[in-house]
Amino acid sequence: MHGADRRQTGGTGRHRHQGHRQDLLQHQSRQVTTCERRTRVWRSGTLSNEDVALGDLPQLLDQEDTLTWVDLLDPTQDDVQDLADATGLDKHTVEDALSQSERPKAVRFHSYVFVTCFTVEGMAEDDELHRLSIIVLPRAVVTVRLGGDFPIDTVEATFEDDPDLVGLGPRALLHTILDTVVDGYFSVITRIDEAVDDLESSLFDQQHAGPAIARRAFTLHKAISRMRRVTLPMREVVTTMLRRAAGEQDRRGLLPYYEDLYDHTMRVAEWSESLRDTLESVQDTNLALGDAALNNIMKKLTSWAAIIAVPTAITGWYGQNVPYPGFSKEWGFWCSTLLIVCIAVGLYVIFKRRNWL
Amino acid sequence: MHGADRRQTGGTGRHRHQGHRQDLLQHQSRQVTTCERRTRVWRSGTLSNEDVALGDLPQLLDQEDTLTWVDLLDPTQDDVQDLADATGLDKHTVEDALSQSERPKAVRFHSYVFVTCFTVEGMAEDDELHRLSIIVLPRAVVTVRLGGDFPIDTVEATFEDDPDLVGLGPRALLHTILDTVVDGYFSVITRIDEAVDDLESSLFDQQHAGPAIARRAFTLHKAISRMRRVTLPMREVVTTMLRRAAGEQDRRGLLPYYEDLYDHTMRVAEWSESLRDTLESVQDTNLALGDAALNNIMKKLTSWAAIIAVPTAITGWYGQNVPYPGFSKEWGFWCSTLLIVCIAVGLYVIFKRRNWL
Amino acid sequence: MHGADRRQTGGTGRHRHQGHRQDLLQHQSRQVTTCERRTRVWRSGTLSNEDVALGDLPQLLDQEDTLTWVDLLDPTQDDVQDLADATGLDKHTVEDALSQSERPKAVRFHSYVFVTCFTVEGMAEDDELHRLSIIVLPRAVVTVRLGGDFPIDTVEATFEDDPDLVGLGPRALLHTILDTVVDGYFSVITRIDEAVDDLESSLFDQQHAGPAIARRAFTLHKAISRMRRVTLPMREVVTTMLRRAAGEQDRRGLLPYYEDLYDHTMRVAEWSESLRDTLESVQDTNLALGDAALNNIMKKLTSWAAIIAVPTAITGWYGQNVPYPGFSKEWGFWCSTLLIVCIAVGLYVIFKRRNWL
Amino acid sequence: MHGADRRQTGGTGRHRHQGHRQDLLQHQSRQVTTCERRTRVWRSGTLSNEDVALGDLPQLLDQEDTLTWVDLLDPTQDDVQDLADATGLDKHTVEDALSQSERPKAVRFHSYVFVTCFTVEGMAEDDELHRLSIIVLPRAVVTVRLGGDFPIDTVEATFEDDPDLVGLGPRALLHTILDTVVDGYFSVITRIDEAVDDLESSLFDQQHAGPAIARRAFTLHKAISRMRRVTLPMREVVTTMLRRAAGEQDRRGLLPYYEDLYDHTMRVAEWSESLRDTLESVQDTNLALGDAALNNIMKKLTSWAAIIAVPTAITGWYGQNVPYPGFSKEWGFWCSTLLIVCIAVGLYVIFKRRNWL
Amino acid sequence: MHGADRRQTGGTGRHRHQGHRQDLLQHQSRQVTTCERRTRVWRSGTLSNEDVALGDLPQLLDQEDTLTWVDLLDPTQDDVQDLADATGLDKHTVEDALSQSERPKAVRFHSYVFVTCFTVEGMAEDDELHRLSIIVLPRAVVTVRLGGDFPIDTVEATFEDDPDLVGLGPRALLHTILDTVVDGYFSVITRIDEAVDDLESSLFDQQHAGPAIARRAFTLHKAISRMRRVTLPMREVVTTMLRRAAGEQDRRGLLPYYEDLYDHTMRVAEWSESLRDTLESVQDTNLALGDAALNNIMKKLTSWAAIIAVPTAITGWYGQNVPYPGFSKEWGFWCSTLLIVCIAVGLYVIFKRRNWL
Ligand SMILES: [Mg+2]
Ligand SMILES: [Mg+2]
Ligand SMILES: [Mg+2]
Ligand SMILES: [Mg+2]
Ligand SMILES: [Mg+2]
Ligand SMILES: [Mg+2]
Ligand SMILES: [Mg+2]
Ligand SMILES: [Mg+2]
Ligand SMILES: [Mg+2]
Ligand SMILES: [Mg+2]
Ligand SMILES: [Mg+2]
Ligand SMILES: [Mg+2]
Ligand SMILES: [Mg+2]
Ligand SMILES: [Mg+2]
Ligand SMILES: [Mg+2]
Ligand SMILES: [Mg+2]
Ligand SMILES: [Mg+2]
Ligand SMILES: [Mg+2]
Ligand SMILES: [Mg+2]
Ligand SMILES: [Mg+2]
Ligand SMILES: [Mg+2]
Ligand SMILES: [Mg+2]
Ligand SMILES: [Mg+2]
Ligand SMILES: [Mg+2]
Ligand SMILES: [Mg+2]
Ligand SMILES: [Mg+2]
Ligand SMILES: [Mg+2]
Ligand SMILES: [Mg+2]
Ligand SMILES: [Mg+2]
Ligand SMILES: [Mg+2]
Ligand SMILES: [Mg+2]
Repeated sequence: MHGADRRQTGGTGRHRHQGHRQDLLQHQSRQVTTCERRTRVWRSGTLSNEDVALGDLPQLLDQEDTLTWVDLLDPTQDDVQDLADATGLDKHTVEDALSQSERPKAVRFHSYVFVTCFTVEGMAEDDELHRLSIIVLPRAVVTVRLGGDFPIDTVEATFEDDPDLVGLGPRALLHTILDTVVDGYFSVITRIDEAVDDLESSLFDQQHAGPAIARRAFTLHKAISRMRRVTLPMREVVTTMLRRAAGEQDRRGLLPYYEDLYDHTMRVAEWSESLRDTLESVQDTNLALGDAALNNIMKKLTSWAAIIAVPTAITGWYGQNVPYPGFSKEWGFWCSTLLIVCIAVGLYVIFKRRNWL
Repeated sequence: MHGADRRQTGGTGRHRHQGHRQDLLQHQSRQVTTCERRTRVWRSGTLSNEDVALGDLPQLLDQEDTLTWVDLLDPTQDDVQDLADATGLDKHTVEDALSQSERPKAVRFHSYVFVTCFTVEGMAEDDELHRLSIIVLPRAVVTVRLGGDFPIDTVEATFEDDPDLVGLGPRALLHTILDTVVDGYFSVITRIDEAVDDLESSLFDQQHAGPAIARRAFTLHKAISRMRRVTLPMREVVTTMLRRAAGEQDRRGLLPYYEDLYDHTMRVAEWSESLRDTLESVQDTNLALGDAALNNIMKKLTSWAAIIAVPTAITGWYGQNVPYPGFSKEWGFWCSTLLIVCIAVGLYVIFKRRNWL
Repeated sequence: MHGADRRQTGGTGRHRHQGHRQDLLQHQSRQVTTCERRTRVWRSGTLSNEDVALGDLPQLLDQEDTLTWVDLLDPTQDDVQDLADATGLDKHTVEDALSQSERPKAVRFHSYVFVTCFTVEGMAEDDELHRLSIIVLPRAVVTVRLGGDFPIDTVEATFEDDPDLVGLGPRALLHTILDTVVDGYFSVITRIDEAVDDLESSLFDQQHAGPAIARRAFTLHKAISRMRRVTLPMREVVTTMLRRAAGEQDRRGLLPYYEDLYDHTMRVAEWSESLRDTLESVQDTNLALGDAALNNIMKKLTSWAAIIAVPTAITGWYGQNVPYPGFSKEWGFWCSTLLIVCIAVGLYVIFKRRNWL
Repeated sequence: MHGADRRQTGGTGRHRHQGHRQDLLQHQSRQVTTCERRTRVWRSGTLSNEDVALGDLPQLLDQEDTLTWVDLLDPTQDDVQDLADATGLDKHTVEDALSQSERPKAVRFHSYVFVTCFTVEGMAEDDELHRLSIIVLPRAVVTVRLGGDFPIDTVEATFEDDPDLVGLGPRALLHTILDTVVDGYFSVITRIDEAVDDLESSLFDQQHAGPAIARRAFTLHKAISRMRRVTLPMREVVTTMLRRAAGEQDRRGLLPYYEDLYDHTMRVAEWSESLRDTLESVQDTNLALGDAALNNIMKKLTSWAAIIAVPTAITGWYGQNVPYPGFSKEWGFWCSTLLIVCIAVGLYVIFKRRNWL
Repeated sequence: MHGADRRQTGGTGRHRHQGHRQDLLQHQSRQVTTCERRTRVWRSGTLSNEDVALGDLPQLLDQEDTLTWVDLLDPTQDDVQDLADATGLDKHTVEDALSQSERPKAVRFHSYVFVTCFTVEGMAEDDELHRLSIIVLPRAVVTVRLGGDFPIDTVEATFEDDPDLVGLGPRALLHTILDTVVDGYFSVITRIDEAVDDLESSLFDQQHAGPAIARRAFTLHKAISRMRRVTLPMREVVTTMLRRAAGEQDRRGLLPYYEDLYDHTMRVAEWSESLRDTLESVQDTNLALGDAALNNIMKKLTSWAAIIAVPTAITGWYGQNVPYPGFSKEWGFWCSTLLIVCIAVGLYVIFKRRNWL
C-alpha cells in the first residue's frame, strides 16, 4: 500500500514518520474528496478576480503589479503536488505542508519563502491545533490549511481595508495572515487565563474541592504546554520575516507591521509563561490547603474521640460487678451522670477555646 | 458595531484582540468624555507657557530651543488621533498607546521614539497596573496615560529642579518620567517585601495558621509575578535609551542619568526575583511545618488513645458476668481502681518523657 | 591481559575508561567472531557491485564518480583497524567508533568526517540504545554499528529511490542514514507519548492506582531522560553538517535535506521536553490526588467512628449497675433502643449532607 | 521637610526612593554627628602622612608619585558633598555612595571609577550587610562605608606589605580592598556551610526535629539568598576592573592580582549555589522523613488499637446479661482471661514480626 | 604567628582566607616533613634520567629537545617556593597551587600555563577530592598534588607508550595527565550511577524502605553536587587548552587528543546532570509511594476499626441492665453470637472486595 502510494505521487513523496497512523489515514481519505480551493487576484491594489483555474496560475505569476492568493483547505497530496508543479515548489515544501509532525518555521527557498505554523481554537485541546502553511512567492501567496476554522474572510477584509498593506505585496498579505493567527492565540490564552482565574477563586472558597482543583490545574497546564509548543517557535518565524523586511529597501514600510506582530507574539509567550507559573503555584497552594485540611480533621477527630471516650470510661466503671461507692444506689446514678456531663462539657469548652473544634 | 467604529476613526484603527471586550468598552465610553490634557512649554530652559491649544503644536515643534510636553490622561482614540495628526505619529503608535495588551517596549520610528510601560500602585493588583506611553519627538514629549495616579507634578518639579536636565531636552524629560516610574516600582516592591517579612514571622510563630499562610503566599506570589511581567521588559527599554545616549555626542551628559536608571531597574528585577525565591521557600517550609504538626497530633492522638483505653479495658474486665477474683467484693473494687490509676499514670509519664504528649 | 591486548592492535589503541568492564568483555568476544560486513558500490548513480573485498577498497576510493558504502555490524577492534588502515582513519576514530562511552558528535578530520550517534528502539530501555558511527570519506561511507536492529535495507531503498540524492555523493548517503536514525527517535517518542497519555487517563479514572502511577511515571521519566541524552547532542551533529552543506557551492542541493532533518531533530527534542514537563505535572497531580483521597478517608473514618460511638456510649450507660431511670424495666429497653437508632440515624444524615460520607 | 532637605545640599541631591523611610532617618541623624575620617598618604611607595585636612586634598591630587587614601565611616551627605567638591565627583556618585538601595556595580566616570559593593559579617543577617563605596581617582582612593566592621587596618597592612602593589597605584589599593571584601564573603559562606553541615547531620540523627530543621533550613536559605544578591553582581565588578587592567600597558602587573580575585569571586558564587542546592535537598529529604515518620506512627497506632480492642471485645462478650457458656462460672472467667492473653500476645508477635511495632 | 609565617616565605605568600583553619594547620605540619619528589627527563623522546636535583632544573630548562617532569606530593610552601625560584613561577601560582579553596582553572602567565583541577576517588566524599596543579613550562611540566592516590605510574606508562605524544612536548604530557584525571571522574560517576540504579530497584521492591531511600538519595545527591563542582569548570580548562592547540601550527597534532578529552569531559558533565535528574525523580517518587502507603494503612485502619466495633456495640447492647428481648435467655446468647459473626464476616467480605483489606 505504502509503495503504491509513492508511485502515484511520482515517487517524490518520501514518507517520514510511518509510525504516524493518523497521517496515513488522513491522507487516504483526502485522496477521495476534492479539497476546498479559494482564489483571489488583486491588480494594482484592487480585487479583479475571484476564481482562477490552476492552469492560469503560472501566467498570473508573470504579470507585474498582480497579487494572487490561493487557499487550499484539507488538500490531498495530489492537490498540493499539482499546485507545486504550477508554481515550482520544492518537494520538501509539499511534504512539510502536509505532514502533521512539523514544527512552526520559516524557510527560505530560491524563489519563495515557506512559512508553517498552527492555528489554535477553543482551549487548545489536542484536536484544536491545525497546521497552516503559507508559501510566499514573488507575486502570489499560497495557503494550505489542514482543518480548523481559520477566519479567512477576516484576513481578506483586514487586508483590503488597509491601502498601505495592499500596495506592499505578498509579504503584506503574509503579515495579515500571521497577525490573525496570533490574534487567535490571544483569544485562546485569554480563555485559559479566565479558567485559571476561576481556579484561583475556587482555591480561596475551597470547600472539599481538592482533587477537582488538582485535575483542573493539570488540564490547564497541558493546554498551556500545548500553547507554548505552538507559540514559542512562532517568535523565530516572525523574527525571520522582520529581518527580511529590515533588509530590503523597498519593503521598509512593512517594518512597523512586523515589529508590532513581534511584540504581540512575545506577549503571548510571556503571558503563557506567567500562566504556567501561576498554575504551578495553584498546585502547590492546593497541596498546602489539603494538608492543612487534613490537620484540621485530625484535630477534630482527636477532640471528639476524647469527648466520647468519657461516658464510655465512666459507664464502664459503673458497670463493674464490684461494690464500688454508689453500687446499686440512686446517688451512684447521679454521680455517674454528673461526672459524664461535667467532664464532656469541660473538654468541649477547652477544645473549643484551643480552636480544635 | 465594529465596522462602524472603524469608519469613524478613518479606517486606520485596526482593532486587534477583538476578544478583549474591555478594550472596546473603554473605548466607547471614552468617545463621550473629553480627556484631561495638560501642556508645558519651556523656552531656553524656563517655563514659558502652561496651556497650549492643539493647533499651535506643529508650530512649536519647529521652534529651536523649545521643549513642549503634552500629557493626556484617559484620552479617546480621537484625542490621540488628533494629536498624531498634529505631530506626525504612525498609526501603530496610536494603536499601541491605547491597547491594554501591549508589553513595555521602546521602538524607534523615523522622526520619534515610542516608549510604553506600566505604572504600578498599591500591591500591584490587577487594577493597579496602568499603561503609560511616552512619545519623544525632537523638541517635544507626549505622554498618554490610561488611568492611575502617576505623580505628574513630581515629575515636573524634579525636572525643573535640575538645571542640567532641562538643558538636555526631551530625552532628559523622558529620563525624569521613567525614573519616577521606577521609583514607583520600588515603593510597590518595598510594600510586598514587608508583607513577605510579615509572612515569614507568622511562619515562625505559627499557631494554626497553615492555610492562611498558603493563601497569603499565593497572593503575594501573584503580585510578584505581575511585577516581573512589568519590570523585566523595562530593562530592555532603559538599555535602548542608554545605547542611544552613549551613541550621540551632544547627549553624553545623559549617560550617567540613564546608567543610574538602569541600575535601579536591575535592582527592582533582582529584588522581585529574590522575593519570589523567598516565597517559594515559605511555601515549602509551611508544608513541612504542616506535616510536622500532623505528626505531632498523631503522636498525641496515639498516646491519649492508649491512656483512655486502660480504664475501658479494666472496667470491661470487672464488668464480666463471671466470678473473677474480686467479683462482688470490695477488694475487687480497690484492685480495679488501683490498676486504672497506676497504668494510666504510668503511661502518661512514659509518653511525657518520650515527648509524645 | 591489558598490555597484550594493546600490542595486538599495534600499540595504537589507548584504552580509556578501563573501569568499563563491559567494553573489555565485548572486545574479547569480538576478537573471536568475524563481524557482519556488507558492501555497496554505485557507479554514476547506479548500483554496480554488492560485495567488495577489503583489499579493493583503496583503489575504489581513487575512482571518480564512484560511491562505496561499507557497513560493519559488531566488528572487533581488528576489523575496524584493518578498515582504518585501508582508508586512512585516525586512531581516535577507531577508538571512538568502538567505545560505549562516547556522546553523539561530528568531528572533522583532514580527509574525512567522523559522525557518531545512537539508534534507539522500543521504549529506549538501557539495552535499546546502540552506537552507530559513520565515517564520510570523499568517495565512500563507512558505518560501524554496535548491536541493534537499524533498518539498513530501508536506508538503501530510500537512498536509491531519490535520484537527486544519489548524485550528491557520500554526504547525501549520510543524510539518509541520519534521517532514518531520527525517524527511529520519532517512533520511540511516539510510543512514550502514548504511554504518557495512558498514564494521564489513569490519573482521571484513578481508583486506587496511586503507587502504580508514581512508578510508571518514574519509568517513563527515565526513558525520556535517556532520549534527551541521545537527541540533544544530535542537534549539534546536524548543525555541523548543515553548515558544511551551506558552505560548499557544489553541495548546495543538500541544504533543504539537512534543513528538514534539523527541524525533525528539533521537534524530537521539543517533544521530549514537553513530555518531561507533562510527567512532572502527572507526578504532582498524583500526589495531590493521593492527599485528597487521604483527606476523604479520614473524613469517613471520623464520621463512622462518631456513629459507632453512639450505641457504645448508650449501652454502656444502660449497663451500669446503678438504679438509673428505666433500670430493669421494659420502658428502659425501649428508651435505649430509641436513643441509639435516633442519634445514629441523625448523625448519618448530618454527615451525608456535609458530604463526609 | 523634603524640600528643605534638598536646598541644604545645594539642590543636587535628588532623593530617589522616597518610600525608604530608613534612608531619610539615617540621613537626618548623620546631619548632626561628624563622621569618622581617616587619611593616608604614600609618597614614592612609603607612608609619609597620616592625617590630611580636606583643604589639602586638591593639591595632593596634583602631585606625581603620591597616593592618597581617604576613608569615611558613616558620613553625612554634607561630608560626602564636601569631599566631592574637593575631588570633582559627579552628583550621581554622591547619591549612590549614600543610598541603601544600590546594587554592587563599577561605573567609569570621566576622571574616576566608582565602585560600590557590600561587606558582609556574621551569618549575613539583614543588618550585617554594609555598603562600601570606593572612588578610584588618578592619584587617590576615597572609601565611603555605611556601618560595619570592615577590617581597614588589615587592608593597610596587606597593601604596605607587598612592595609590588604599592608601586602600582590606586588600582592596586582598590584590589587590596576588594580582596579583603571577598575574603569576608569566604568567612561568611564558610560559617553558613558549617551550619548546613550541622543541619545535614541532624537530618540523619533526626529524632523529632522535623519543624526545627524546616525552620533552620529556611533561615539558612534566606542567608544564602542574601549572599547571592551581594556576590553575584560582584563578578561583573571584578570583570570590569580586570578588563581595564588588561587594556592598559603600564598596569599589566595588576592582571594576575585581578585574575586571582575573579577566581575567588567565582568560587564564592559557586559555593553559595551549591549550598542552596543542598538546602533544597535538605528540605525535600526532611519532608520525606517526616512522611515516613507519620507512616510509622500510623502503623503503630493501628497495631496497638488492634491489640487493645481484643480485651474490650472479649470482656464485652462476657459482660452480656445472657446465659453464654461459662456465664457466672469460674471456668468462664478462665476462658475469658486465656482468650484475652492469647489473642493479644498473638497479635503483638505478628505485628512485631511485620515490623509494625 | 601569621606574621612570622609571612617572613619565612620571603613576604610573598599573602594568606587569603585566614578563616580556613585547615590550610594553616596543613601548612605547619608540612613545614616539618620533606615532601615526596619524583623527576623524569626525556631526551629526544626517550627517558634519560630518573632523578634530578632541584639545582639542575634551570639548566635542563635551557636544553632543546628535552622534556622534564617534576612531581611533588604534599609539598610544604617552602618546597614549592624553591621550585618557583628555580623555574620562575609567579607568587600567585605558588599560592594557588597550595590553597584548598581554589576552583579548577587554566591561567596563562608570560612564560608558562598554570592548570589546577581536582582528582576524585571513591564516591566523591569530602575527603576524596584532592587538588592537582600542573605548571606547563616550555620544556618542562611541574605537578603539585595535595594528597590522593593519583595513578602517576599509569600516566607515565601511557605517555611513553604513544610515540606521537612524546614528540609533542609538555602540552602532550599535560594531555595525558588531564586524560587520566577525567578517566578518574568516569570511574566515580560509574560508581554513583550503580548506586543510583540500586536505589531505583529498592524503589520498586520498596517494603518499608521510605526513610532509608530518602537519606540515600540525599547522600548521592550531595556526591553528584560535589562532582559537578569539580567537573563543570573542567570544561573551561580543556577548552582553553584546545584553543591553544588549534592556534599553534606546530602543535596541531594535539588537536584530536584534546578534542577527544573535551568530549569525555562533556560526557561526565552530562552524565552527572542526568543522574541528578534521576535522583530528584527518585525523591519525588519515594514521596508519592510513601503517601500511597499511608493511604493504604488508613484504609486498613478504617476497615478493621469498623469490624472490631461490631462485637463491642452488640455485646454492649446485650450487657444492658434492662429486659431487652432475650435478656437472661439462652436464645438471647445465640442471637448475640449470630449477629456478631454475621456482621463482622459481612463487613470483612465487603472491605476485601473493595480492596481495602
Ligand atoms: Mg514543541
Ligand atoms: Mg515544548
Ligand atoms: Mg500571574
Ligand atoms: Mg513570568
Ligand atoms: Mg510558581
Ligand atoms: Mg501532602
Ligand atoms: Mg509577561
Ligand atoms: Mg512573565
Ligand atoms: Mg537575589
Ligand atoms: Mg531574600
Ligand atoms: Mg536573585
Ligand atoms: Mg529563598
Ligand atoms: Mg515550585
Ligand atoms: Mg506532606
Ligand atoms: Mg546527557
Ligand atoms: Mg504536553
Ligand atoms: Mg515544553
Ligand atoms: Mg505539562
Ligand atoms: Mg512542572
Ligand atoms: Mg539580587
Ligand atoms: Mg556547585
Ligand atoms: Mg554540596
Ligand atoms: Mg553548583
Ligand atoms: Mg524544590
Ligand atoms: Mg536539590
Ligand atoms: Mg561549584
Ligand atoms: Mg541527560
Ligand atoms: Mg539531563
Ligand atoms: Mg531520570
Ligand atoms: Mg523535579
Ligand atoms: Mg506527603
